[in-house]
Amino acid sequence: MGVKEEPNKEILDPWGSSLIKDYERLFTLFGISPITDELISSFPATHRLLRRKVIIGHRDLERILSAIKEGREYAVMSGIKPSGEFHLGSKLTAEEMIFFQRLSPRATLYYCIADVEAYNDNRQPLHVSEEIALSNIMDMLALGMDPKRVYVYRQSDELRVLRLASLLSRDVTYSTIRAIYGDKPFGLYISALIQVGDILLPQLPEFGGPKPTVVPVGIDQDPHIRLTRDLAKRHEKDFGFILPSATYHRLIRDLTGREKMSKRNPMGMFTLTEDLKSIKYKIMSAYTGGRPTAREQREYGGDPDSCMIYELLRVHFEEDDSFLKDLYYRCKSGEIICGECKQVAVERVLRWIEEHRKKREKMRGLAEKLLKEHRI
Amino acid sequence: MGVKEEPNKEILDPWGSSLIKDYERLFTLFGISPITDELISSFPATHRLLRRKVIIGHRDLERILSAIKEGREYAVMSGIKPSGEFHLGSKLTAEEMIFFQRLSPRATLYYCIADVEAYNDNRQPLHVSEEIALSNIMDMLALGMDPKRVYVYRQSDELRVLRLASLLSRDVTYSTIRAIYGDKPFGLYISALIQVGDILLPQLPEFGGPKPTVVPVGIDQDPHIRLTRDLAKRHEKDFGFILPSATYHRLIRDLTGREKMSKRNPMGMFTLTEDLKSIKYKIMSAYTGGRPTAREQREYGGDPDSCMIYELLRVHFEEDDSFLKDLYYRCKSGEIICGECKQVAVERVLRWIEEHRKKREKMRGLAEKLLKEHRI
Repeated sequence: MGVKEEPNKEILDPWGSSLIKDYERLFTLFGISPITDELISSFPATHRLLRRKVIIGHRDLERILSAIKEGREYAVMSGIKPSGEFHLGSKLTAEEMIFFQRLSPRATLYYCIADVEAYNDNRQPLHVSEEIALSNIMDMLALGMDPKRVYVYRQSDELRVLRLASLLSRDVTYSTIRAIYGDKPFGLYISALIQVGDILLPQLPEFGGPKPTVVPVGIDQDPHIRLTRDLAKRHEKDFGFILPSATYHRLIRDLTGREKMSKRNPMGMFTLTEDLKSIKYKIMSAYTGGRPTAREQREYGGDPDSCMIYELLRVHFEEDDSFLKDLYYRCKSGEIICGECKQVAVERVLRWIEEHRKKREKMRGLAEKLLKEHRI
Repeated sequence: MGVKEEPNKEILDPWGSSLIKDYERLFTLFGISPITDELISSFPATHRLLRRKVIIGHRDLERILSAIKEGREYAVMSGIKPSGEFHLGSKLTAEEMIFFQRLSPRATLYYCIADVEAYNDNRQPLHVSEEIALSNIMDMLALGMDPKRVYVYRQSDELRVLRLASLLSRDVTYSTIRAIYGDKPFGLYISALIQVGDILLPQLPEFGGPKPTVVPVGIDQDPHIRLTRDLAKRHEKDFGFILPSATYHRLIRDLTGREKMSKRNPMGMFTLTEDLKSIKYKIMSAYTGGRPTAREQREYGGDPDSCMIYELLRVHFEEDDSFLKDLYYRCKSGEIICGECKQVAVERVLRWIEEHRKKREKMRGLAEKLLKEHRI
């Protein structure tokens, strides 16, 4: 397959581009719990990402489910590095955040614009981050984020996050941070500490004090969760933190099937604001599970499990489980070949994108308001 | 003499307690310039700490002297870790700050309460730092700080400092920070980066943009200055910083004559709010340059250069050069013995302290105002 695997299996790299082969091993190594069917059934609502095991693991998610059940408040915390328009990967995390925000009227979403990380990791000036963030928030709103229960902030503008990061750094040792992240530039370690501040922000007195918090992220972000939980424990006496919970989605391969989806390889992904022709072209060029010839495929069937078109529909653009199941077996049996299937995908994706754009354009004013609201 | 010297001569430790034997070597090694008589003569005013070469070195001080001469604005930047009442060491830096503030009506003093450092280095909660800071500011005012040209802030409360520290961390490598500071807990590296933010704060657009800045400190703080100048250079494009200037005072031995003066050894120093009997006792117990017996001293004379009583008067409590010179020769010649000299010192110190306390008590309201003024 030529899929890249992580070079050092002991380290998950939040800034890396490797895929993961053996999730079970990772779960055991780092103490992550799998998302079981039983757990899924205790949710008050369903979501394709849960049903289809795109969200595959968690830490202490029971704490959030109890809060929902008992009508207690909780926080949903995540964010985005505003280094570009929303793409398929950002959409995934966004949908998870919004799902958790909408699961209970007692949930508040904390949406962090990680502009310090964009500066440190991508050398992107803060004012550029602010422009991109506006567009990102429009997408969040179009995807269904409830604007009445969200706190949007920029890292560079949130004193309480930077203060927390500074204070919590007291008990960090270089060997711990190196064990968690491997050898990275100092600036990325600082970004990591600031993310710890982000994740614990909802528990500060100004936001009502300690509360269950869920952080929906890709599993490659688990190092941040581990560091946060470690530091939350060490500073419990000063702050009374409840250890934050997390959910983890699988790392999604990009359209080329070779790498983790990332902005670094534009042919492997598309943004939600990209030219429609370009999106169509990328889908039509995607890696599939097809046979070398149409004849062979009719005879032996295709392999939807390794097909990026199927993945695109399964993860992103097809809500209907039975349609998806049907497609799976039609591919397996050779009834449908890749060209046809790509047409189905293009049609669905472009329809979704066009709908989404109409929605997002109406959100500009509200997005501006949310972005400026808490400016100091 | 039993004086401790720095264990690794390549590293100056801002958090350490070692004294320095060979200043010239240090100057050469780190590119520090000596304070020459010529430089002193170009000051528009004089100060005992300059005349007596307590302030011994500098970086780019010419830049400040030009600004004074040409009536251009400049910043004086320093601060205090609020982990205790003002003692002799804090008084020294305070007087330097105030001297530079008063040298020109275009100078603004930036006075930083390093409460994040107190948390990271001393595990001191922020609210305790705030109480102590109030007392420290009363001392600053009593020592002559002009309240109309000062910006007092707490590190934990100054978003712009923490933001700068976060952004400037981008270009720091672990090997650089380790080369500058040696092996330290991670939290102290963060404190160091925050101090970089402190030192560059006066040059932000909110404070009128790039300007000459002088940082009067003990020479053991030079690592912070070097790191700041290095990062200011690397981020010049984004911020347009002018490299900050610095002055360095010698490390003062404590009353026992054995160590750098520090809060860690209370018999070696006293605070400005300490019980007068205790101050008297410490002075009477100080290490002197006397002979084993009064008879020998009358015959051979004492050694004022190694005497902590002489040092106390020279550095702190005697403004009159000729009185000091006279005392020096009277000691050398055996005309005065240690008991008498200590009485002179006790009398001068207690008189100074009593005067100071009267002044500082009147400053409480103003100090409260300065501390709260810029609270976010």
